[in-house]
Amino acid sequence: MTVGTVLSLESTRQEQKPSLESIHSLVGDDLKKVNQVIVDNMQSPVALIPQLAGHLVAAGGKRLRPVLTLAASQLCGYSGDRQIALAACVEFIHTATLLHDDVVDESMLRRGRDSANALWGNQSSVLVGDFLFSRAFELMVADGSLDVLAILSRASSVIAEGEVLQLMTTNDTSTSEEAYLDVIRAKTATLFAAAARIGAVIADRPKVEEEALESYGMNLGISFQLIDDVLDYSASQAKLGKTVGDDFREGKISLPVVLAWRRGNDAERDFWRRTLENLDQEDSDFDYAVELMEKRGALRDTVARARHYGAIARDALGIFPDSEVKNAMAEAIDFAIERAH
Amino acid sequence: MTVGTVLSLESTRQEQKPSLESIHSLVGDDLKKVNQVIVDNMQSPVALIPQLAGHLVAAGGKRLRPVLTLAASQLCGYSGDRQIALAACVEFIHTATLLHDDVVDESMLRRGRDSANALWGNQSSVLVGDFLFSRAFELMVADGSLDVLAILSRASSVIAEGEVLQLMTTNDTSTSEEAYLDVIRAKTATLFAAAARIGAVIADRPKVEEEALESYGMNLGISFQLIDDVLDYSASQAKLGKTVGDDFREGKISLPVVLAWRRGNDAERDFWRRTLENLDQEDSDFDYAVELMEKRGALRDTVARARHYGAIARDALGIFPDSEVKNAMAEAIDFAIERAH
Repeated sequence: MTVGTVLSLESTRQEQKPSLESIHSLVGDDLKKVNQVIVDNMQSPVALIPQLAGHLVAAGGKRLRPVLTLAASQLCGYSGDRQIALAACVEFIHTATLLHDDVVDESMLRRGRDSANALWGNQSSVLVGDFLFSRAFELMVADGSLDVLAILSRASSVIAEGEVLQLMTTNDTSTSEEAYLDVIRAKTATLFAAAARIGAVIADRPKVEEEALESYGMNLGISFQLIDDVLDYSASQAKLGKTVGDDFREGKISLPVVLAWRRGNDAERDFWRRTLENLDQEDSDFDYAVELMEKRGALRDTVARARHYGAIARDALGIFPDSEVKNAMAEAIDFAIERAH
Repeated sequence: MTVGTVLSLESTRQEQKPSLESIHSLVGDDLKKVNQVIVDNMQSPVALIPQLAGHLVAAGGKRLRPVLTLAASQLCGYSGDRQIALAACVEFIHTATLLHDDVVDESMLRRGRDSANALWGNQSSVLVGDFLFSRAFELMVADGSLDVLAILSRASSVIAEGEVLQLMTTNDTSTSEEAYLDVIRAKTATLFAAAARIGAVIADRPKVEEEALESYGMNLGISFQLIDDVLDYSASQAKLGKTVGDDFREGKISLPVVLAWRRGNDAERDFWRRTLENLDQEDSDFDYAVELMEKRGALRDTVARARHYGAIARDALGIFPDSEVKNAMAEAIDFAIERAH
């Protein structure tokens, strides 16, 4: 298997690997405050709530979405402190959807597992998710901007619609590229877009800047998700000891699958149907799936699609004057894409 | 089994059975508009959403919570039309929590059932619930009142906290009366309270009237839930062909159980532990449970507790001048309680 070499064709064009270090160092002080707001607002006399939510929020990861709010407000020259609580809202909404996703995903994976634990997990996930979601709205109300409330309540509706849409396309290998993009636009990119847009709203900048940041967030979010899709089939990731194959095992229809299926012959489509629609999988199937994707250029071209959306995100930043934070936000796009190598 | 006779001791004190007819006829025109707003706002290009939500919202039932918003705004002399959309919000939040409750309850009941259907149901319930919840916030944002948003976002957090609290006390027969009341106050009564309070907020009435309506809703909600608890063990309901015994089969710890357990001897406590904690139940157990409750006066005294909260709700209305709608709101309290007979 030589997927690594295919993907690395384009990987030497930059001297230094792009990273999130610049953006994190520019918003680092704010991000610490965001973490404190998050911890403070998970308090509840019901002990399970801070326990479960704390575990999730502490695990944290890159905090990409709140970082977008912080960076966007800096880009817009905002000097107050409203970005702190609103970035926390964005993270709460994200965490709530992760919790509810778990219920949906875990349900599909549960076959043959110990169900008592899984069920307790389901119940807590639904309810603590609801709590975080409500708490996010309480924080927004405390902030007091109906514009922000409109953006994030709309985003929440769209995310929920996207989840239902995904549920209906799950395990359908004939999903079109457009249908798949509709799903990730709704499920992932919409919250990136809202997170970034809020920065312009609180800075009271003109609509055109709000829209530019919305476009930046939306297209960055799409690239991010597409590269995540690629990484899940990446041999080089596997070599780095990262988990691969989760999407495959769950029968998730991601863009690499959509492309491989459309470009495949009858035998290949039978393979995708058996493994992803019927979830009838053998140990060697994942390696063969990667092989087919390589043969059909599905991973390479998913990266190409991600570059396309990344380019739109970059151009969206064009109306803002040059600054350190603008460069860092552009580098975040490169980071999103170059992770594939 | 003669539970019916015990409960009917107090049932002849009124000439005519109290009902919801008066309140429904006073707010009937508004309620039709609320139903239209509900239907309009469940539209989505994702077909499953209007299907599932429509089924639930159409099933409808008494629409108690939105009726409270409509009646309270009338009581406060409000003459605009904001009560329509806000009553729809209240119903959306209620429906969303019902959907999420299903996941939690169904999970516990699922043992040994066909899980594929149950799981599809779970996934849809979580996601369509999220959609309705987000849509409720969009409607509130369109209304534009931060005061209303504060009341309903706070209520939503409290409801979610209450659900988690209930999860933690499930199947614990030694739950205290106070702990149980905390659960139903949070899970049920808080939304009644918020629904009623909104009426005073949009009518721009003084805080004291907001608080009176909050108290009315809260205490009405508690009585309502307590009588629901009683009805689930009621022999007279069973005679009317209504479903009884759901709480028992699920091992739900309601106030009748709390009282019967505390007043029971060791053998009785063993019975409650076996049937409700271990869910080890035989066909004859439900009849015996009703017998024990009768023996210990648990149903009768739960009705007495409900009367107590009903009296507080009635007094809360005292500061408002007499009017048809005030009488109808008082009758709703009597209806909530007299259902037990």
